Amino acid sequence: MVTGKFNSLKHTGMLETIFNHRSIRKYKSDPIDDLIMNKIVEAGTRASTTGNMQVYSMVITRDERIREKLWMAHFRQDMVLQAPVHITFCADFNRFNKWCLQRNARPGYDNFLSFFTAAIDALLVSQNVVLAAEAHGLGICYLGTVIYMADRIAEILELPVAVVPVAAIVMGYPDEIPEMTDRLPLKGVIHKEKYSDYSAEAINEIYAGKEALELTAQLLKENNKETLAQVFTDNRYPRKDNVHFSNRFLRLIENQGFMNNEE
Amino acid sequence: MVTGKFNSLKHTGMLETIFNHRSIRKYKSDPIDDLIMNKIVEAGTRASTTGNMQVYSMVITRDERIREKLWMAHFRQDMVLQAPVHITFCADFNRFNKWCLQRNARPGYDNFLSFFTAAIDALLVSQNVVLAAEAHGLGICYLGTVIYMADRIAEILELPVAVVPVAAIVMGYPDEIPEMTDRLPLKGVIHKEKYSDYSAEAINEIYAGKEALELTAQLLKENNKETLAQVFTDNRYPRKDNVHFSNRFLRLIENQGFMNNEE
Repeated sequence: MVTGKFNSLKHTGMLETIFNHRSIRKYKSDPIDDLIMNKIVEAGTRASTTGNMQVYSMVITRDERIREKLWMAHFRQDMVLQAPVHITFCADFNRFNKWCLQRNARPGYDNFLSFFTAAIDALLVSQNVVLAAEAHGLGICYLGTVIYMADRIAEILELPVAVVPVAAIVMGYPDEIPEMTDRLPLKGVIHKEKYSDYSAEAINEIYAGKEALELTAQLLKENNKETLAQVFTDNRYPRKDNVHFSNRFLRLIENQGFMNNEE
Repeated sequence: MVTGKFNSLKHTGMLETIFNHRSIRKYKSDPIDDLIMNKIVEAGTRASTTGNMQVYSMVITRDERIREKLWMAHFRQDMVLQAPVHITFCADFNRFNKWCLQRNARPGYDNFLSFFTAAIDALLVSQNVVLAAEAHGLGICYLGTVIYMADRIAEILELPVAVVPVAAIVMGYPDEIPEMTDRLPLKGVIHKEKYSDYSAEAINEIYAGKEALELTAQLLKENNKETLAQVFTDNRYPRKDNVHFSNRFLRLIENQGFMNNEE
């Protein structure tokens, strides 16, 4: 099933948008028209949602002072100050719970399954929003820091119990056209019928292209490392940080009331 | 920012696909061409991914005997047997860990943050795959049961340590054109600048449209309930089930090696 013959298929408008995606890190200050913003967030709501419960919220921040606080939380990445719009996608059972209580129904959504269900909802919404924005000529960048700093972001945005941020993007008109990012060969990420575990040779083959990139040579030099994998394990995503942020994020999930799992 | 004037904006091809999405539950038996399948899963790989690590896998199952096992796991929903293609999207650090170990690097990705990072990756991929499939005239349906039965699905698909299923879809040519599903009014799911918590009146207003639907009247009758909220809390997603599946899913995350969070 895996071949290299993709180029013979013509892109439709939809596929063009998907295949042209790149993360934008430099933005013009031009504002985004309200009608366009509405269309983009409405596109978000057309994503599949568990039981049509729509257990998510989008917090759209344009105010400079709040964006400055978000910028500090997001490790002071310049693009957070530059891009005119910041959207935080939240797993949200607060609205649904309130509705249940007002309708003589007892919500049982204070557990991990409910958190994860709501997180899935919010993430599918986010990807629809991203693609709808790009179809309008806008650029976006996901901020992975939203998970590391979810507790601080919950404070800044005044998120109540039963609401946890799970994705964040900046959005605006691009002031750069970066190169497309490399990807592993398709056969590296798909499995036919069942999962087929990777042999040492398969791993070598899958990562060969990435390891041969000029960008990799540059990263090894900058980070003074022998292998690209060491750049990830020692510098970019070291165990110590991962464990620290794991506990902070789990604590937030618990504090927001999603860890009452006693049967 | 929230107005009702969306219809004045013309859909592009991209937005048309997003706005025409509906879950398909009846499929023709027609197979999906390999070139088209490749294009669709390649579209998945163009989604944003944390640090360009691509910590996900897609398991594409067409074999009838394996699909029958998946059908049993997915609460015997007919569409799982009917649709010719089943894709399971997995949070996957297995490939990345193996690469690290082969490159003299020590992976520190056996914690909850790493699981959640990989889950985000997999979910963004899934939504790209869904939209690319729909752009090709295919239909899909997400299977929420993948989380409930993640442990069983991991067995069926022989997922190794560091791999957890987080989304699943069936895919094929639609044999129905269902009505569009209702959504809450946009102002019900978006917040400006910060989160503004819901007053009792706001909840009434947000859910009024849904509660007035003919479908709701039908559900109340079928389930013999006073309110739609009770259909969710008592019948569809009761606390007892949520707590049971919370523990099973957390146990799988732990068994797959993603809960070593000691600092």
